[in-house]
Amino acid sequence: MKFCSACGQSVGFLIPDGDHLPRYVCGSCKTIHYQNPRLIVGCVPEHEGKILLCRRAIEPRRGFWTIPAGFMENGESLQTAAARESMEEALARVDIGSICAIVHVLHAEQVHVVFRAKLLNLDFGAGPESLEVALFEESEIPWRDLAFRSVEFALQRYLDDRRAGRETLHFQDLDHPAKPKPRV
Amino acid sequence: MKFCSACGQSVGFLIPDGDHLPRYVCGSCKTIHYQNPRLIVGCVPEHEGKILLCRRAIEPRRGFWTIPAGFMENGESLQTAAARESMEEALARVDIGSICAIVHVLHAEQVHVVFRAKLLNLDFGAGPESLEVALFEESEIPWRDLAFRSVEFALQRYLDDRRAGRETLHFQDLDHPAKPKPRV
Repeated sequence: MKFCSACGQSVGFLIPDGDHLPRYVCGSCKTIHYQNPRLIVGCVPEHEGKILLCRRAIEPRRGFWTIPAGFMENGESLQTAAARESMEEALARVDIGSICAIVHVLHAEQVHVVFRAKLLNLDFGAGPESLEVALFEESEIPWRDLAFRSVEFALQRYLDDRRAGRETLHFQDLDHPAKPKPRV
Repeated sequence: MKFCSACGQSVGFLIPDGDHLPRYVCGSCKTIHYQNPRLIVGCVPEHEGKILLCRRAIEPRRGFWTIPAGFMENGESLQTAAARESMEEALARVDIGSICAIVHVLHAEQVHVVFRAKLLNLDFGAGPESLEVALFEESEIPWRDLAFRSVEFALQRYLDDRRAGRETLHFQDLDHPAKPKPRV
């Protein structure tokens, strides 16, 4: 951030009076521009034991597999956002269930929320941000070719809980970018 | 938003190519400025059955009672944010537990996340944003003088669950400002 979105003049990065963290503050109109974590919302759609995954058509991590997920928009609930992303990325209608994982991606200033979900029918396919969409048995999940560590965490916990017959909420903190894993 | 924070030129409000919602887009450098919901994080601190509440020293809703809560900052987890807000607003050290409520405050473009918590000692007091801080028995909670509907919802569900001996996660959507209740 270099300029004030309210008046167009230059901003400085300083601790405002009464605050304890540096903020972008306009040198002219004095507006304080707070920056906060963004919510990424997704789900693990299941059908007869299989998990629906999307292969990404866009960067970052083009070509790698992920669950349907994306930025939450203003005016929607977490559940609405998760269902919308399933439709956009996998053309898939889902019934959103409980939260499986919340991952604090500290270095990216994001909070990832992953719900359990049921696929409502088999009329899915690749949306514009996906190269392909497919159902995977647990033994077929492409662990080495997953796009993001938060997705790996959520899928692992999802499957652990499913095996144990429970639905719990799991937290994880990620605080620096992962080194890319070598392909095997 | 009137000006681009990257280059200082004017922004328009239009649907970018390949998108489905209008965004603020710079007419000069073409940067798209996405706007997403912000997270407000708080907790219900309990000590020997009593609930800690703060009377607000700042607007909005100055003079009304609330739980310790505030905007999540970049670089922290939901739990860290909830504990920090307890310290800032009530000078209170807490042990953060499970999530009690997630409230989608659609008209404010906020997601409120409320944790259960245990007060670790009785060394609490009013922080700079509070007029006073006090412990309330369930029968003493000032329902008519609570600051926000999300707080009312979270407290109700917290107490319901406590009575039932369970810890569940409750969702609520709020989609327009509440009319102020008359004081009695």
